[in-house]
Amino acid sequence: MPHKSRLGCLVVDCETKDLGDALAFWSAALGMPGKVDADGKYAQLQAPEDQPRMLLQAVDHPPRVHFDIETDDRAAEVERLEALGARRVSELPRWTVMEAPTGHRFCVVGPQRADFADNANAWD
Amino acid sequence: MPHKSRLGCLVVDCETKDLGDALAFWSAALGMPGKVDADGKYAQLQAPEDQPRMLLQAVDHPPRVHFDIETDDRAAEVERLEALGARRVSELPRWTVMEAPTGHRFCVVGPQRADFADNANAWD
Repeated sequence: MPHKSRLGCLVVDCETKDLGDALAFWSAALGMPGKVDADGKYAQLQAPEDQPRMLLQAVDHPPRVHFDIETDDRAAEVERLEALGARRVSELPRWTVMEAPTGHRFCVVGPQRADFADNANAWD
Repeated sequence: MPHKSRLGCLVVDCETKDLGDALAFWSAALGMPGKVDADGKYAQLQAPEDQPRMLLQAVDHPPRVHFDIETDDRAAEVERLEALGARRVSELPRWTVMEAPTGHRFCVVGPQRADFADNANAWD
């Protein structure tokens, strides 16, 4: 059963409990307005419509940028990525944390954008 | 004199002297073919035409992902970003390394994509 995936989101992990200052900087730096979510954990920046989403995330580890890969079949996509050499780090209700052979952490998540079905990569 | 800038490139810094394995993983993971440059320092992945470029870079520091901001006036853009709270880390012939107030390193580079003049953000 074929499934699809692609680069879905760029996540800027910010080591803070208050994303306000991080949002002020990154939205002005990149020219992408945004707002902090109700629970204060995320701030979505308004990236161009057809491009990967851009998200700030409040974290308690040192700052980094990570990728989210969006997919319509998380189990199949995680298996595909494991076969390519990535390892599974943890399973959460809405995403799987993985680590690439290059040492970069990334997450596998559900579809993020309206054009996913038309434009994502299809894997047999 | 107004100038322009926007998110230009996603750079996957890989701690390696040989980008071959990193390219094999990331190009398959993201469905973006690519090739290692003649000098072995970079591998460009074929991202969708209208989106930020995607680049693997061989580095001697721990792996990370960083952004490049593309601009038609590096001096003016660095000054604008400093006024937003970023600091200048180092000046190189073709880019300026900066650090965001959130602790993320990023670079300011020249225009990367053909539609830069039409679609970048304009700053007065």
